Amino acid sequence: MTGDSETDRETLLRVVSTTRAIRRFRPEPIPESDLAAMLFAATRAPSASNRQNFRFVVLRSSPVAKAAREVLGAEYRRCWSAKRQRDGYETAARKPERPATARMVTAMQHFVDHFEAIPVIVLACLIRYKPADPLEGASVYPACQNLLLAARASGYGGVMTQWHTGVEAELRSLLSIPSEVAMAGVIALGRPEGHHGPVRRLPIRNVVFEDGWDTPAPWADDPADARFTSAGPPGLRSES
Amino acid sequence: MTGDSETDRETLLRVVSTTRAIRRFRPEPIPESDLAAMLFAATRAPSASNRQNFRFVVLRSSPVAKAAREVLGAEYRRCWSAKRQRDGYETAARKPERPATARMVTAMQHFVDHFEAIPVIVLACLIRYKPADPLEGASVYPACQNLLLAARASGYGGVMTQWHTGVEAELRSLLSIPSEVAMAGVIALGRPEGHHGPVRRLPIRNVVFEDGWDTPAPWADDPADARFTSAGPPGLRSES
Repeated sequence: MTGDSETDRETLLRVVSTTRAIRRFRPEPIPESDLAAMLFAATRAPSASNRQNFRFVVLRSSPVAKAAREVLGAEYRRCWSAKRQRDGYETAARKPERPATARMVTAMQHFVDHFEAIPVIVLACLIRYKPADPLEGASVYPACQNLLLAARASGYGGVMTQWHTGVEAELRSLLSIPSEVAMAGVIALGRPEGHHGPVRRLPIRNVVFEDGWDTPAPWADDPADARFTSAGPPGLRSES
Repeated sequence: MTGDSETDRETLLRVVSTTRAIRRFRPEPIPESDLAAMLFAATRAPSASNRQNFRFVVLRSSPVAKAAREVLGAEYRRCWSAKRQRDGYETAARKPERPATARMVTAMQHFVDHFEAIPVIVLACLIRYKPADPLEGASVYPACQNLLLAARASGYGGVMTQWHTGVEAELRSLLSIPSEVAMAGVIALGRPEGHHGPVRRLPIRNVVFEDGWDTPAPWADDPADARFTSAGPPGLRSES
């Protein structure tokens, strides 16, 4: 519930500023009416030529859902274990000056270790009508963001990950997903264990330019209460 | 301003359900504080490993911005003219049973004819750290959607298009965009001429499945006030 006088913009900014990656979930299931509302929000998103070629395959607790979750869970543990070592998280998480990294590493380990127990998994898909293209994500990721924002605004939380690529063949077979359908991401949803603090990001002057690359926009000021990402080694972020 | 007792979910659902593509803009500029707030919302979005490798190049009225807008405007007119004929919009727009298509065709023609006068153009970019990949859009299109939602919640409107690909070389040269940076989309922003009605989309049962492809989720009901896309020929939608 918002304050009485909060405007749409204040609400929207508050929701987007606190929609952080949630990787620890309470065990209770999501009521179907809430799930329908979140997926309704997802499907309001734009897509190229409004083709609406996004699709969402929900996995909860049926035998086939459990089988698909086990395939994903095993792959997620494999991917995280490799990334944890390869990208230097292992070392960084032990440094006292990087508490956010240490928290992320713990949360990610919990996420992959408990993947099969996450209340709802949504496989976001895109029906391709032309060859695979880096621009095609404009027809599915806005819908994924709507889903995560609607989850946040409804008291849930989630995260999108893309560690499914190594097990696409198994998932296609289990879930009868046609070959022309791309698997764009895997979204975990549930009640957060813990709270939704504000996300930390780079100051907007670092990412908003005017009239040319790396040309700062002098008006691009962050709100007074913005929280920032600490500078870490390139490619190593706190994943909040 | 929302009703006193509107919850975050109600506000979010209302905002996402009325964030439709706006292609006619009033001429007044967007105050810089509003532009900063919208771009702040964009940058709160998630990205793979939280690398925040999205960037936004704002084009307003400087000489270089005008030059870039002219390059884009000419290409947009060329692309729309080709699409209008190729995809059958020309014929469909004349059918009385397809009023939404006729409106879209008129709006799109207005959009490309007045491209240079749109108050703000934002070129959404992605710094690549690995080869181009269809999944990479997960690091830039959620931010684009946040931007469009923040615009809507602030009384503005916009649309993302991807007709820049034919003039990337000219844009790179004009705006000094490095070769490792992908141009993901072009977002037009301004005060809408006309109103933001609810978007029309497919019923969610058509796009939400459970446990397998094309397996309807029995709980996937649309809200009572949802508005639907009329069925048109495949690939030909009303682009609302």
